[in-house]
Formats: sequence, structure tokens, C-alpha cells
Amino acid sequence: MEISRQQFQSKIETIREAIEECDFIAVDTELSGLHRPGGSKRLDTLDNRYTEYKEATERFQIIQFGFCTFTWDERSGRYMAKPFNFYIFPTGTTGRIQPNRVFMTQAQAFDFLAKQSFDFNKWVYQGIPYLTVTEEQEYIAEARKRIRDDLPDIRIDEKEKLFVEDAKKKIAKWVENPKKTDDESGVNISTRNAYQRRLIYQEVRKSFPDLTAEGRTGFIRIVRLTEKQLEKRTNEQMARVQKDCDDAVGFRKVIDMISASRKMVVGHNMLLDICHIIGQFIQPLPDNVNEFKKLAHKVFPYMVDTKYMCAASTELQSRIGAGTALENLRFETNQELFKNPYVDMSIEFPRYLHDKEHEAGYDAYITGLVFLKLHSYLEIQANPPPPKAPEEEIKQEEPEPVKEEVPEEERKRRGNTDGWDVSDEEGEDAAWLESDNEDDQFNQDDEEDVYNYGSTRYPLFDQDRQPASVIANYVNKVVMVRTAFLYFDFIDTETIDHTIDAFYITSSNTQQPSPLPQADILALFAEYGKCIIDTAGDDNDASAFVVFENLKEDPNAVKENVLKGLAAEEIKDVQIETIAKYYENVLLLRNNVGQEINKE
Amino acid sequence: MEISRQQFQSKIETIREAIEECDFIAVDTELSGLHRPGGSKRLDTLDNRYTEYKEATERFQIIQFGFCTFTWDERSGRYMAKPFNFYIFPTGTTGRIQPNRVFMTQAQAFDFLAKQSFDFNKWVYQGIPYLTVTEEQEYIAEARKRIRDDLPDIRIDEKEKLFVEDAKKKIAKWVENPKKTDDESGVNISTRNAYQRRLIYQEVRKSFPDLTAEGRTGFIRIVRLTEKQLEKRTNEQMARVQKDCDDAVGFRKVIDMISASRKMVVGHNMLLDICHIIGQFIQPLPDNVNEFKKLAHKVFPYMVDTKYMCAASTELQSRIGAGTALENLRFETNQELFKNPYVDMSIEFPRYLHDKEHEAGYDAYITGLVFLKLHSYLEIQANPPPPKAPEEEIKQEEPEPVKEEVPEEERKRRGNTDGWDVSDEEGEDAAWLESDNEDDQFNQDDEEDVYNYGSTRYPLFDQDRQPASVIANYVNKVVMVRTAFLYFDFIDTETIDHTIDAFYITSSNTQQPSPLPQADILALFAEYGKCIIDTAGDDNDASAFVVFENLKEDPNAVKENVLKGLAAEEIKDVQIETIAKYYENVLLLRNNVGQEINKE
Repeated sequence: MEISRQQFQSKIETIREAIEECDFIAVDTELSGLHRPGGSKRLDTLDNRYTEYKEATERFQIIQFGFCTFTWDERSGRYMAKPFNFYIFPTGTTGRIQPNRVFMTQAQAFDFLAKQSFDFNKWVYQGIPYLTVTEEQEYIAEARKRIRDDLPDIRIDEKEKLFVEDAKKKIAKWVENPKKTDDESGVNISTRNAYQRRLIYQEVRKSFPDLTAEGRTGFIRIVRLTEKQLEKRTNEQMARVQKDCDDAVGFRKVIDMISASRKMVVGHNMLLDICHIIGQFIQPLPDNVNEFKKLAHKVFPYMVDTKYMCAASTELQSRIGAGTALENLRFETNQELFKNPYVDMSIEFPRYLHDKEHEAGYDAYITGLVFLKLHSYLEIQANPPPPKAPEEEIKQEEPEPVKEEVPEEERKRRGNTDGWDVSDEEGEDAAWLESDNEDDQFNQDDEEDVYNYGSTRYPLFDQDRQPASVIANYVNKVVMVRTAFLYFDFIDTETIDHTIDAFYITSSNTQQPSPLPQADILALFAEYGKCIIDTAGDDNDASAFVVFENLKEDPNAVKENVLKGLAAEEIKDVQIETIAKYYENVLLLRNNVGQEINKE
Repeated sequence: MEISRQQFQSKIETIREAIEECDFIAVDTELSGLHRPGGSKRLDTLDNRYTEYKEATERFQIIQFGFCTFTWDERSGRYMAKPFNFYIFPTGTTGRIQPNRVFMTQAQAFDFLAKQSFDFNKWVYQGIPYLTVTEEQEYIAEARKRIRDDLPDIRIDEKEKLFVEDAKKKIAKWVENPKKTDDESGVNISTRNAYQRRLIYQEVRKSFPDLTAEGRTGFIRIVRLTEKQLEKRTNEQMARVQKDCDDAVGFRKVIDMISASRKMVVGHNMLLDICHIIGQFIQPLPDNVNEFKKLAHKVFPYMVDTKYMCAASTELQSRIGAGTALENLRFETNQELFKNPYVDMSIEFPRYLHDKEHEAGYDAYITGLVFLKLHSYLEIQANPPPPKAPEEEIKQEEPEPVKEEVPEEERKRRGNTDGWDVSDEEGEDAAWLESDNEDDQFNQDDEEDVYNYGSTRYPLFDQDRQPASVIANYVNKVVMVRTAFLYFDFIDTETIDHTIDAFYITSSNTQQPSPLPQADILALFAEYGKCIIDTAGDDNDASAFVVFENLKEDPNAVKENVLKGLAAEEIKDVQIETIAKYYENVLLLRNNVGQEINKE
């Protein structure tokens, strides 16, 4: 379902319902540009990568957001998917609060989107604006001040002094004896411009603190309100502010609802998505990566990255291999082994009955679909179903499932099917016959006989609201490529990837770090195989990584030999560490000094 | 005529023809954002304004460019307009040279364009890319180096040493006696990757300087070329580079053609357009405003701003008034007094037979149309036509033209009409009759009897290629609002606008300039009327302008009184100058120190 700016308010309840009813939510974004275009680093530090992503969130915008809810339907034995697609554009044409936003666009990013038939007119003409949490708070604080008349005094122009005096006299006369004036219930002061209005408000506040000035078109009416009336008036004004704000919050409502649901949020290679979602809709990202982790975990308490699952699970890797791009995962999980569970598009969500790759809503749908298949596969691997009757035997190329006793309880939990064989053709025929019965079509009720696809739901959480054991290891860890870490961890410290062959080079003169003689260093390392050198951060090229494609020799021996070579060429002040040693030091520092490490 | 990316190359000759044949060219741009959004300064310095515009050119992009040529057609006694409209998008999908561009977008600017039905899909899908002059030069220098084999040596990997030795032996064998080898005319070395190819090029260059290595698919062929063959080869390679470059230059060709034509370029409030055109298509704008003036004047030697004409000409002001917005000028010049000359859309350019306001091509057309009317009006005012016969007398509300003898020569120059009365109804009828004559329609030739609209062309240049006297004063001066100058002058120093009531305030402690106590200063000035205070530049609020809506008292007296007031409140280190004095100082400095002033 694509929801435009014009439909947004009227569709909020549809969105809320989908989020509230569902088992989990998959998300995806399309961006106006990517971080550090043209950068080609092979190895990066965690802090450096985070800083890159943070800067990207300050430059570029999410221009399309997609999410897809997946809801188990017990009666039909399948999941129902509801994919939503939104264009996001910070238009200033709706509502009374209009932040003026300037953001960056990367031509190559638009070229990429154009290849996927992205509709840039829908983006600008129908994209939904938003207010961040921070912006909303600031606006409300400002409005509260205004309503409480808590404004600084302004000076009275010489030529307006008479105007103010006349007004004061008129008000004083009414105060003295309202019944003697034309209008017993209040007194009106005509004003010609905003300046005069401001002066009247100010004067009433100062000279008649028990009266209230109310703006009207062309004049100000001064009345005496009871405390109750005053309270009512303030409440009305604050309600109006709240309404304006509510309108302006716009698309952020969707993010707020997803966050408040505390449901599992699934993405594919999702670190950059999460950074952009938080930076654009919640608040500017903190400088410190640990602060960011805390914030992100608060917003989305259970994140799962399908790319990380495939990279980290040996079972999935041996089945799927190294191709963890979303399209590839979709292809792989289309195979017989990943048949469970059955997933259908909800009837009101027909948009993706045909493929629409790289539309955020579609990619979110595919991500969630893949997640269900991967999860189910892992569950089946952990607790294989009982062996089949011979005529239903599994094809030869498939590995024989490990035979294992399934406890009665577990069997009950999985429902009355065998867990993944849903090819019940007889049942299917019956369903078709049924839907041909016109009487039944018009007499549907809760007791209706629905066709059951017989697929199995594996709960994502256990009774204690802990993620299910087979996926627990993947929750709140996401892929982080081109670093020496196996993943980015929202909860804990990252684990080093010991398979990377690399060295960390620094100027050993810590007093006056100078740029490294990169060419000489690389030349010496190149004796041991193909390698490249990358600067390690924004520190004036005084540190670098040398990364090997495939180092056959012992890293410590290579290190010693290169150091000897440097000495022979009289190159001084260069320090070399193996990557393992380097990252151990970093993690040690991080754990000991806590957040201090992030300022290194 | 709207020209897309896909049509661009095939339409180049149509564009060239229009530019070459025309009398002048009107231009307009649409931008992805405006300089300093939300800024509300009432008074600005020239340098500050230029810096703002320069920064805007570095941030935002021209996303649509329009120009319209106007060509006098003697036979039909009218101008023929050819409006062109181009979307500009720096796509990386065409050609071999693909700069990766990142630019800013201001949501409010897109909102504005959306109100005019701007087509953002055409922008991204059909927008034409470009290469600046600077980028083209860099690319060609780089390619020349590559072709001349002028590349730095790379180190030979240990494991490739054997490969290189074998190749050398094979080449040496062929050199010794080509006839003894399989292939008398050259020797082929198979390569597995780019690294091996690079090594072979390098080795041939070093060990066989009289041979030439030529890349083929999967191998490198080494041959002996004569000097003539070598030259031919180099020329072919350079031609290929030139062709790639030519493709990549893209839309800049249009700007180059307009510039090379040295024709009059007309805009409306055109300073920002000119800044963006030069910054986006020629080279980054210089830091110094005088350098910019020189550069702009070199690119467009005769610029005319219709808004400036109307603001600066007392004749036009008394006729048109203060409303110098383009739509207003169009309305005003639609009146009887501005009937001359008659302008028609060229037959192949039907796009703007209906209005399309704020499409760049349309706005360029209207700008040129207005310019022709204004110019003609000024010519007629300077040399009124002879008085009419009584029955044709001018309506009462129109001012009686000053009676003046028109010299015989001048009358001849203007052609055989009276200069602005083209309501020759008899002739019009004749024309209609004529076009009904079918025989004639299919027998048109150069001698054909064309209906003459009888309007008058006033040349834009005199015999010495100097701008015509009635517009000479407006050439190369453009409107610059919210400054104390009457205009921005591309040739000369600007003139002060003495009608502005303002003061320039600085910290008089020039050693340690501190932020001014703005509120206190404003309070003292406010005694003399409505005024606002603006910081004057990026100098830590240590300088400011106080601008009055309408100051009735003598500025020098006000200055003295405010200084006294400051003293009474014990506010020190504040210096006050009247705006006239301030700008005189600035101009004096500028003239004396030349460009030094721009660094102030």
C-alpha cells in the first residue's frame, strides 16, 4: 500500500492496526545519497565508520521508507504480509509548522533510483513531511512561552505613546464601572498593525494583570475572566498548538508507532538504515558510538539483520553460501528447503503481487519474507521433524536432517502439521471448490471453514519475552563490512574477525606524528603478496592499514621482516602491529576506559 | 522547444543556428535552492552579497535552463522568437567521463517549483549532464599523460617476476629475428589481469623503447611502428579522448555557444543567474568580486537586466511604476504604448503558445519580449514619431509625446512604418485572404508576398558595435536589492543609493572587536522611527547596520544624539557612521587599494 501526503492522516489507523496486530516488522529505506561517495577503503575502524554514517545522516535524506508487517493467521496456517511504501519529502506546504530543510543529493544515487523507475514527482508532490522529536519539543516550549505571555517587553515608539495612553484610559474607564460603558462584558481596542497589538498585550499585562487581552481581527478585546475561564482558555490554546504539532510530526508518527510496539524490527544490512531513521526522525546522532548504541536500542529494542544472520550462521552459510545480497537470499529461500512458512499478501495490499525491486516497501516485504524462511530453517535444523514416509522422501542432493526426538509439547506448539511440508493438494482443491460456492461467499462469518495452508509458525520470543533461542545470537547485531569486526553490536562489544590479513601502521613518534612513507611501506609488504594501503582515519595520514588479499606467511614474521627492511632503508618512526593485536588493544581500551576510547 | 538528454546531440545544430542568426538572447534558470534560506537582511555589503551568491553556486544547482533567441525578420516586419528549455541533471549514466556530483536541495525551492508543475521525473530521467571548462582541461591533461605512457613505475610482485622475465625473453627473441618467429609483424603476450598488463607496458617502455605495446582483449601486442605510424596512433588516441570529452561537455556547449556569439544576453534580476551559470558550467567563482566581474564580462560581454532598466529609467518608472516583477512587466508592456515591435513564436517552437510561468524557457521568452518592448519604448520616447492625423489621436490618459523633428536619415533607418502604430487592419485582412489562397500556399518561394506586420526594429548596437544610446546606460549593470547600491556593475564601481536611511555601527576597539550591544543600540535609534538592526557580515557581530523605514531627521544629528545616549548608558567602544559616509569610505578604499578592499 503506497500512502501519499494527501492520504496520510486518513490512513494512520490502518497503519496502527497493522503494527499492533503483527508478529514483526521489516523495514527498508531509499536515500538521496550515500556516505562518502567514491571512498574505497578496505578496512576501517569502528569509530571512523560510525562518524561516516553520522555525517551521512546530516547530509542526505531518506526519500522513501518502506515497512512490511507480518502477522500469523492461525485459521489459514500462514503469515499475512502488509507492505507499506511512503515517499518522504520535507515540504513546507502543509500545516502551520514548516521547518525549512536543506539536504544533499548525490546524482549517482538518483541515477540508481532512476534505473528502478523511482517516481521523483511522487517524491516531491506526494512525499510526507515530518518533525523530529527534538524539533517538536522546541516548538512546544516556544508556544508555551507565547501562550503564557512570557515574552520580553518592547520599547514604545515615540509616536505610539499617545495610542498606548488612550488605550489605557479606555480600559481604566471600563474597569472603574463596566456598566457605564457601551459594552458591559469587555472593551475593544482597535489596532492598525502587529506592533500596536504587541503594545496592547504588553500594557494589559503590566497595568491590568487581572484582565485578559484576546486577539480579534482588527482589534483586541480586553475581558475579565474567572480562573476557570482562564484555565479553559490556556487549555484551548495549548490544544491548538498540540494539533498543529501533531499535523507537523507527520511521518514520524509511523516511526513512533513502530518503536512503541517494541516488536522485532528486521532489516537487510541495516546499520545505515537505522542511523538514517534515528537521525532524520528522532534526533541528530550523538558523536559517540556508544551513545548511539544506547539510543538505537531504546528506539528499536530487537533488531535483526538478515544479511548478518546469513553471514554468521554456519548452517545458513553452508546452505546459501557467500552471496548474501537480498535478491540472492530471495532466490535461495525460494527453494524447497525453505518452503515453511507460507506467506501471503494481505488482500488490501496488492501492490507487490508483481516485483518492484528497490522500492522500499517491496524490499521490506522481501526482507521480512527471507527472515521468516531463515528463522524457520534454523528451527527445523535445531529440531528436525520426524522422518517422512518413504514415498515422500527428500531428494538426494538435500542433506538428511539429523534425527532427533521431538518432545510432545514442542510438537503441539508447532501445530498439527509436520512443520514444512504444505503440499496438501487435496486440501487445495477443496479450497477452490469452496470459493466457488457463491452462497458461502456472501455468508462469511467467524466460524467459516477457511483453507489451512498448514505451514508452521515458530514464535520469535519465548514466554519470558526473550528472543527465540535459534535467533537469540543474531538479535541486535548487524553486518559491518570492510572492518576487522565480525559485526556491529548494539548491546555489547564487537568481536574481531581473525580471518582478515592486515597490519596497522603508525608513526611511532607520538609527540609529532608525521605522514607515513606509504609507498616505501607498501613496497616492503608487497613482497609477501597482493596488498593495498589505506589511511586509518582523519589523522593526517599518520596511521594506515595494510590489507592483504591472502597472506600465506605468519603475520608476526612478516612484521619483523618489514621492520628490518625499513631499518635497512633508514626509514624511522614507523610502528607495525598485526591487525589482531591492534583490535585487541582497541577493545581492551574500549572496555577499560569506556567511552573515552571513542575520542581517540 | 524542450530538449531532453536523449535528443541533445541531435539538436545541437538547431541550437547553434538559432544563436548564430539572432539579434539577442534572453536567459533564465531554475535552481535547486536559494542562497541563505531564511535570511532577512535589509542591507548588505557588496562583498558579503557576492560571497553569499558564490556559496550558493557551490551548494545549489541549475536544474532547468531556458534561453530564447529573438531574430528580426525583415520580410514580415516582426521578431521571431525561439524559446529553448533544458532540464539539467548531472547524471553519470552517459558517456565515459562521469564526475560524481553531490549538490544541495532546498525543500522550499522544490515546493515552489511544484506549484509551477515542474516535472521532477524529466529532471532526473531526461536532464542533460555537463563538464565545466576546468574539469575538461583536467581530464584532457590526465589522458595526455596516459597516452604518452607518462605513468609512474610500479613494483613487480615476487610471483610475477618469472612472468615478466618470460615476456622479455619472448620479445627479445622476436626483436633479434622477426622472420624466425610465428608472427613476423609483432609478438603477443597473454595477460591475466590489469596488473600484468601494466607490468608489460612498463617493461616494453624500459627495455624496448623503440617498440610499442598495444592493448588487446586478453593479450598485449608488441609491434615496431614507424614514426609516422606512432604519430597516427597518438593522434587517434587523442581524438578518442576528445570525443569522450565532447560528449561529456554536454550542456556546457550551449553556454559556450552563447558566450562565443558575443551577443547581448538579457535577463530579469539576473545577477544570481549569471553567478550560477558561470559557477556551474565554466569554473568555480573566484573569491574576489572584482575577479568575478572580469570573468563574467569575458563570458557575457553585453548583459542587460530588464528589472534594472525599469528601476533605473525615469521614463520607464513613470510609465510602469515600482512593480518590476516579471509578470508585472509583461502585463504593463502588453499595453498599447508598448505595441512595437511585433513578436511571434517561430513555427517550430509552439511550446509557449500557452503560458508556462516559471518554466525557464518561458520566462526567458517573456524576459526577451519585455526587453524588446522597453527598448522600443525608450527609442520612441527619445525620437517620437511625427504627430498623427486627428482621427487617429492618442487616447486622453496617455501623455502627449514631446514633439521633435526626426531627421530624414533616422526616419529611413526605422523603415517605412511610423514606428509603433501597427494596427493596419486593411493589411491584416489582406494577409488572411492570402493565406486562404491554396495555390499560393503550395507555391511559396523567396519572392513570395509575405504579410508585413509593419513593426520597427531598433538596432541594439550602433555601427561601432557599441550598445544603442538609449540602452547604453543599462548595459552590464544589474539589480542588486537590499544593498545601499543602486545596482551591481560588471564594468565599473557601483553608485550609492542616497535614499536609504541607515547607519553603520562598529566596535571602535579595532584591536579586539567585540559583539555589539545590539538591543541597547536599537533602543536608542528607535526614538527616531521604526528601524531594524542587521549584522553587517561574518565578523562575530562586531559590525551592524541600523536601517530606518523612513527617517525624518538629519542623520548627522541622530548619530550625535545616539552617541550621547550610549555615553549616558556608559556603553563604550561603539562607532557610528551614516550610511552615505560608510559607502563613500568603502568606494574610496576600493578605488585606491583596488582588490585589497575585497579582503576587508
